[in-house]
Amino acid sequence: MPKPDLGLAARLFDELRRATFDGTGVTRATYGEGEQIAHDLVARAGRDLGLEVKTDFAGNLYLTLAGRDRRAKRLILGSHLDSVPQGGNFDGAAGVLAGVSVLAGFRAAGAVPGRDVTVMAIRGEESVWFPYGYIGSRAALGLLPPEVPDTVRRSDSGRTLAEHMAGLGFDPAALRRGERALAGDDVRGYLEVHIEQGPVLVEEGAPVAVVIGLQGNSRWRRARIDGAYGHSGTVPRRLRRDAVAAFIDFAARVRGEWDRLEAAGERLLVTFCTVHTDPVRSGMVKIAGEVDFGLDVSSFSAATIARMTGFVETAASEVAARHRVAIDLGANSGVAPFACDAGLRAGLVRAAEDCAVPFREIGSGAGHDTLAFGEAGIPAAMLFIRNRNGSHNPDEAMEIDDFAAACRVLARFVFDFG
Amino acid sequence: MPKPDLGLAARLFDELRRATFDGTGVTRATYGEGEQIAHDLVARAGRDLGLEVKTDFAGNLYLTLAGRDRRAKRLILGSHLDSVPQGGNFDGAAGVLAGVSVLAGFRAAGAVPGRDVTVMAIRGEESVWFPYGYIGSRAALGLLPPEVPDTVRRSDSGRTLAEHMAGLGFDPAALRRGERALAGDDVRGYLEVHIEQGPVLVEEGAPVAVVIGLQGNSRWRRARIDGAYGHSGTVPRRLRRDAVAAFIDFAARVRGEWDRLEAAGERLLVTFCTVHTDPVRSGMVKIAGEVDFGLDVSSFSAATIARMTGFVETAASEVAARHRVAIDLGANSGVAPFACDAGLRAGLVRAAEDCAVPFREIGSGAGHDTLAFGEAGIPAAMLFIRNRNGSHNPDEAMEIDDFAAACRVLARFVFDFG
Repeated sequence: MPKPDLGLAARLFDELRRATFDGTGVTRATYGEGEQIAHDLVARAGRDLGLEVKTDFAGNLYLTLAGRDRRAKRLILGSHLDSVPQGGNFDGAAGVLAGVSVLAGFRAAGAVPGRDVTVMAIRGEESVWFPYGYIGSRAALGLLPPEVPDTVRRSDSGRTLAEHMAGLGFDPAALRRGERALAGDDVRGYLEVHIEQGPVLVEEGAPVAVVIGLQGNSRWRRARIDGAYGHSGTVPRRLRRDAVAAFIDFAARVRGEWDRLEAAGERLLVTFCTVHTDPVRSGMVKIAGEVDFGLDVSSFSAATIARMTGFVETAASEVAARHRVAIDLGANSGVAPFACDAGLRAGLVRAAEDCAVPFREIGSGAGHDTLAFGEAGIPAAMLFIRNRNGSHNPDEAMEIDDFAAACRVLARFVFDFG
Repeated sequence: MPKPDLGLAARLFDELRRATFDGTGVTRATYGEGEQIAHDLVARAGRDLGLEVKTDFAGNLYLTLAGRDRRAKRLILGSHLDSVPQGGNFDGAAGVLAGVSVLAGFRAAGAVPGRDVTVMAIRGEESVWFPYGYIGSRAALGLLPPEVPDTVRRSDSGRTLAEHMAGLGFDPAALRRGERALAGDDVRGYLEVHIEQGPVLVEEGAPVAVVIGLQGNSRWRRARIDGAYGHSGTVPRRLRRDAVAAFIDFAARVRGEWDRLEAAGERLLVTFCTVHTDPVRSGMVKIAGEVDFGLDVSSFSAATIARMTGFVETAASEVAARHRVAIDLGANSGVAPFACDAGLRAGLVRAAEDCAVPFREIGSGAGHDTLAFGEAGIPAAMLFIRNRNGSHNPDEAMEIDDFAAACRVLARFVFDFG
């Protein structure tokens, strides 16, 4: 079996970190400078390896090792190259570089797979930049609603997705026309290697996990409370329309419902990710008239997500009436829970056993581009790598030995896939 | 009795609004452009009226009408000229222009008061700019701790008070040395006309109020919760150190205690004025590791303030332990409740009765420079003018007829003061 080129992966990880270090962590903004640096670096590696290198209208990058039967449906090994601000070096990039190290091994050994195998470096997975999930993969699969390019704006620049894409030389018009770069009948399967973003593998002492399924979620990214500004020392309680007081009441109710659902045996996570009064209009000795917040509800159970979503909507209208404020929850960018493809999962389990790599089978709390492939009806599965300290922070810590174990499993899987 | 020059006041109000309009309200930043424009305008009016015009080391402005006995302790008619961002035109300025219109009336009538009467235009009353209360009046009275000029920074510029003062040509070194521009034994009394910042006079249908006393407060301007960032879809509840969750728990407890104290007959106001997660480090799909907030507790009862302050401190340590976060409430910039001088109050009541101006006697929820004069042991009192829509917002609405009534009462008071 061809051995993955771990030296190449290590060099690319180092180069990637150095080029996108922001002083605290790494920053690779969706359709921004850091993401582009990462794409350039991976494209160069693909050319150096003699792979076919292509970029689609949305800027996704494809490195293809030609298989014996070029008309057979291909296998995609994908993940993303963007990061959250001040994030870690491995979230996303580990999956792309695992694919590169496996294809490099095939090239070095002169091994030719039965079908085309493509490493896909995906754009725009981290929805902190644009308030929309899985932009790159959904764009490639023709799943992005045509209004998205011109209506979602990047949180730091305020410019639209279309403006950012065009600025890098890509083609937002193709998105508006609903074009596709990939179709279900061209792809046999999608496999995503990713660091685990929770603590299970660290706690259980295994280097990798075969993922059973992905949590769904219900997300209100731009919820808003509008009350009235006033003097905090003078306006009597009965006359207040205090947006912060309404937020506290609303948030405490939602967290109380989380307690009740958990006590009833349901499993979910509830997070108020952001909250802020207006930085200019609010201040000491003022009652705040505006609060913005973001709320994330995640669960493996579609029924639990639906129950909590209903509670949130009801609580918002009750609290709005009680505090005489307006609560606009805004758009909900939720996604349904997803079960990984049984055949691909079985193949990963066999590969891990053949390589004698210890593994667990666990669920994924985080969403991934895998969900977009699932949405398109393409068989999809994931392999997690053990990682300390979670992700979306500069302290994520994947051991290179664990990455090597994942690459061996992936190489075995590809070799046996036929 | 000399009639106040209301035409002059109306022209000055107009000019002031035009020169400091920000597109929404007026903005007159403490030791900033808008405040300086206002001081220049009032100084020019003083010179035009032939008054003695002086500025102290902290930039406070004094327009003095010489009295018959120049060695007698003087009477000060003061208020401030700064505003909150996007504030209203009358908060502060109404008191200064009431004094100017009264002295203009004395000049026009050739009336000479028994003692010097000084209109004092005070700097830096709105603590939204620098996190410290009554900067200008405390500086003039030698009550500003010597470290303040170099340690407090303006919220918008990040520069210190000393830097802002020096930039306008004033002398922060005098503050560091603890110099005084006014002393208790030079001042017979301090009288402040101010718009009411609550709704009582509108509801009760009276144009003015003689103020009985001022609320005290307990203010945490820069409280902070430090937890840990993490992925909102993956970190299990038991491992979270969620700063927003801790804020919600803490704030709900504090608001619950407000309910209990009110039910027990205590009167106080509790306001979370600001709250924000870090604009760069927080974002969707992240647990927030940091929250900043500001909390204002106000009451006419020192005992009630002390009780709530104790509760806040206890709740902070309980919530910190429960959520495994650190809660640093930061400095408390509180002030004790203050009772207005009985003699000055009686003089205001007599003046209102003599002018047949309907009035009420009420407490002041907001703090004012009056508190600094009280702190210095100077007899101090206040006259409120009816004002719709509260203050600290662009919609404050004082009727010019009510302002005129206040000016008549003030002129009568000064004329009779001797």
